[in-house]
Amino acid sequence: MEEQGLLIVLSGPSGVGKGTVRKHLFDHYNNDFDFSISMTTRLKRAGEVEGVDYFFRTKEEFEQYIKEGKLLEYANYVGNYYGTPIDYVRETLDSGQDVFLEIEVQGALKVKKRMPEGIFIFLSPPDLEELKMRIKNRGTDSPEVIGQRMEKAVEELQLIKYYDYVVENDSVDEAARKIRSIIESEHLKVERNIDRFSKIIEEMK
Amino acid sequence: MEEQGLLIVLSGPSGVGKGTVRKHLFDHYNNDFDFSISMTTRLKRAGEVEGVDYFFRTKEEFEQYIKEGKLLEYANYVGNYYGTPIDYVRETLDSGQDVFLEIEVQGALKVKKRMPEGIFIFLSPPDLEELKMRIKNRGTDSPEVIGQRMEKAVEELQLIKYYDYVVENDSVDEAARKIRSIIESEHLKVERNIDRFSKIIEEMK
Repeated sequence: MEEQGLLIVLSGPSGVGKGTVRKHLFDHYNNDFDFSISMTTRLKRAGEVEGVDYFFRTKEEFEQYIKEGKLLEYANYVGNYYGTPIDYVRETLDSGQDVFLEIEVQGALKVKKRMPEGIFIFLSPPDLEELKMRIKNRGTDSPEVIGQRMEKAVEELQLIKYYDYVVENDSVDEAARKIRSIIESEHLKVERNIDRFSKIIEEMK
Repeated sequence: MEEQGLLIVLSGPSGVGKGTVRKHLFDHYNNDFDFSISMTTRLKRAGEVEGVDYFFRTKEEFEQYIKEGKLLEYANYVGNYYGTPIDYVRETLDSGQDVFLEIEVQGALKVKKRMPEGIFIFLSPPDLEELKMRIKNRGTDSPEVIGQRMEKAVEELQLIKYYDYVVENDSVDEAARKIRSIIESEHLKVERNIDRFSKIIEEMK
């Protein structure tokens, strides 16, 4: 029997740098997992590419996906939908390949309900001032939206207890390296290797 | 409250290379843990240093330690005692420092009974032929002792299910790096950081 792939879920407050850390992880570490691309109704930002950063869809198209049950999770966040297409995730895990999800906190908790065997990593800001700066420096949003994001961030930090691991994003490189350690370490758990080792023991007898 | 240190237990069959991997880990990675030195009644090998590799003691001295309950665990292995002084381990963990134990499989299981919160890592041989070679190339022991060690190895491999992680020693550097990942990853678990983060959340409100 093929070993099942791991579902790795990276989440955390808005503005904490999930996307940057995820990109660094994929660019600088030799990873054996697929990155699951989210679907969203929010507007494309400068430099973002359809099918690479997100699948950008209209509200109507997104709601059609919801109706058809084609999303592992979805959330409405500051007026926009974000979600994860379910078929791709299931097929990849079944083939023994890991899947990496980078999603909003609401979405991560929904995934946890449906797939509690996933590895849930919370990317946290090193402190509040830093978080404020990151949200403000993004520069594309109004003061109202920034205010909503701050409140959301406090709410979201309180959800940390539902996660397996917490990584502080005090340095993008360190955060990416730590996430790599978590994934590697999870693969080394005895429960995931016991079948393979039972075979080795039989050969030694 | 100071965070409690982690007890890291590296174990595995005789001849698998525990000592080599442990030395590589300590020499090449920036570790924040203390290495707990074992006590033994076996003869000092060429190059081994008292108080660095082991505390070398006579059988009589060792049995006095047992009587006085001063060992976290001890085992009689191929005619010699091996054990871990308990006071040093407890004091170090209480001070928030990690402790690293490299011990025989019998000893590791005894430690697990007394301190189940430890992180138990099984260093496994990549295959039987490799294990045979390593035991034989050590070159200081008789065929009888080698035979005993082989039987012991099979017995010990069957105990893998009591461990948390399994690391194959197919390369000393890779094995050491993986152990480093496990230790780092364990420190990132939410259960070990929740108190610290509750404080951060309060500051953000």
